Amino acid sequence: MMLQWWQGPGQPLDHVARNKAQARQLQLTKPAGSLGQLESLVIQLAALQGRERPRIEHVAISIFAGDHGIVAEGVSAFPQAVTGQMLRNFVAGGAAISVLAKQLGAALEVTDLGTALPLELLPGVRHLHIGAGTQNFLQGPAMTSAQMIASLEAGRDSVLRAQSKDCELFIGGEMGIGNTTAATALACWLLDCPAAELVGPGTGLNAAGVAHKARVIDAGLTLHCALINGPMDALRAFGGFEIVGLVGAYLACAQHGITVLVDGFICSVAALLAVRVNPSCREWLLFAHCGAEPGHQRVLLALQAEPLLDLGLRLGEGSGAALAVPLLKLACSLHNDMATFAEAAVADRPA
Amino acid sequence: MMLQWWQGPGQPLDHVARNKAQARQLQLTKPAGSLGQLESLVIQLAALQGRERPRIEHVAISIFAGDHGIVAEGVSAFPQAVTGQMLRNFVAGGAAISVLAKQLGAALEVTDLGTALPLELLPGVRHLHIGAGTQNFLQGPAMTSAQMIASLEAGRDSVLRAQSKDCELFIGGEMGIGNTTAATALACWLLDCPAAELVGPGTGLNAAGVAHKARVIDAGLTLHCALINGPMDALRAFGGFEIVGLVGAYLACAQHGITVLVDGFICSVAALLAVRVNPSCREWLLFAHCGAEPGHQRVLLALQAEPLLDLGLRLGEGSGAALAVPLLKLACSLHNDMATFAEAAVADRPA
Repeated sequence: MMLQWWQGPGQPLDHVARNKAQARQLQLTKPAGSLGQLESLVIQLAALQGRERPRIEHVAISIFAGDHGIVAEGVSAFPQAVTGQMLRNFVAGGAAISVLAKQLGAALEVTDLGTALPLELLPGVRHLHIGAGTQNFLQGPAMTSAQMIASLEAGRDSVLRAQSKDCELFIGGEMGIGNTTAATALACWLLDCPAAELVGPGTGLNAAGVAHKARVIDAGLTLHCALINGPMDALRAFGGFEIVGLVGAYLACAQHGITVLVDGFICSVAALLAVRVNPSCREWLLFAHCGAEPGHQRVLLALQAEPLLDLGLRLGEGSGAALAVPLLKLACSLHNDMATFAEAAVADRPA
Repeated sequence: MMLQWWQGPGQPLDHVARNKAQARQLQLTKPAGSLGQLESLVIQLAALQGRERPRIEHVAISIFAGDHGIVAEGVSAFPQAVTGQMLRNFVAGGAAISVLAKQLGAALEVTDLGTALPLELLPGVRHLHIGAGTQNFLQGPAMTSAQMIASLEAGRDSVLRAQSKDCELFIGGEMGIGNTTAATALACWLLDCPAAELVGPGTGLNAAGVAHKARVIDAGLTLHCALINGPMDALRAFGGFEIVGLVGAYLACAQHGITVLVDGFICSVAALLAVRVNPSCREWLLFAHCGAEPGHQRVLLALQAEPLLDLGLRLGEGSGAALAVPLLKLACSLHNDMATFAEAAVADRPA
């Protein structure tokens, strides 16, 4: 059987650079280990970038948007029209991620993979229109194989554009009314657990809404599970074009040697799915934060992720990852610019 | 009895600005509450700054350094000469806080309150030399009343200089070999618990070293507790000129209406002490992180603090607070620059 592109191996890490960075950390004028998680982070970045002194100068943020047929079951607090409205807001500069990208000097790309409602062409948005949203997964698979492959390629293509701009850090973001339902269904399949263990309010359901959402997800799992043979089948069944786009992007990042900073719950589910499809991508994934959606912590645990922030975020759009970018940049600055004990003539040993 | 300057009230908060900021948060194009802790943070900043749209443009970082007589009991992994060596490193630009201040565009001030070993005049350092370090608190109070008052004033004066430069955020940092021992003794007094509950490795003690440190602290508590009548007595007994400087700075910030971002364990102990001295300062204190030192979490709990970061930091110097500054800045940018539902024509209500 022919390998698909997404099954190809991730780039190997540079262990010489890792060792050099580790040695440098021990020489900097601070108690060993006193920068905590930032020390392991910068050592990992050295291994990923293949240089003793890593840097984060060019950050690419790529938002994937798409609608979800499952919204017909009443699983979201917001109307589906918001997906298109937010696409306009992304490029107009008014959305959270637009503000953050500007402040960080990051490149922001917005891809419309398919809204349910017709949408005029928006300057600055890449309209791929893989479908008018996905199908309701209580009535069949969310998407066709062709749609899944097109969404994976959309993710990969975004990474290739980022690479052509010397991007050192890729952030994927998502927008799609109903996508915590799709992501939770996927997470339930990946973690083999019922919806009640992972389901949450998404953008703002009340307790009755959350209970209904759990029943919808469980019904979807019952309908599809016997037919699912591997993570790609699960992805097609529960879908989300934007979730598939993220999976394609993460796998492409690993193959092209670009570090990923994974955002919130939905992105973390895409990351776990990417790792199940192709475990060699795991080392290329850094995790920005643990968000408010209840399933997020479980997904991060399954990934053995050590997120940097825990601020109760649940916005999506890549916003949590963007908020963590300064920590990566400052970790690099500390590593690269601090004096060593020898340079500063500071005693590094007990008297 | 005449009131001392540090007993004067903190500035009142602006509840009109707070309410306006809270109302604005609900109009921004995101699900209500989806920016988690950053929403309450920016609303608090609005109340502190007295404007619906707060900003953090001028950050002042002030490092207080001093030596500790208790080091004679063998409580630190590093020799006392390091305090002076690090003062040189701060102004030469090689220390962690120097690198962070530069990256953040923050003003960095360094005050030498008294090193144990003689030190040449260092350009860029304010040498106050309140004493050749404190006294060993197993042999008497760490400092005299005059030394304590001079250290409090050093903190206040630093805040006044920051205020003259339109500082919107004050970060205090500390350097002093042995100062986790002094801070832990103070925390034990403040929280009324034995050293074993709070003591930690500081810059890098092994288990035997930590056990010895706990015995030293308990001996100090036994020696002084009967004579201590209030937090200022405890401060004088266990001291640390730099800890007293931080207390003076925090109290002055509240009185002059400057928001504080509190750093790690030692700074948090100073903050708790300041709050016990003058509870009106509490509202002016934001907390940057929960560090690795075991007592830090307990002190934060007593302050009902909600720190922004939890990265296992234990460096001091104000470095953890500096690392959290971008979160404050980005929280302000999001609040000030995001579009409202009306501006962006995005639906803000269920369909």
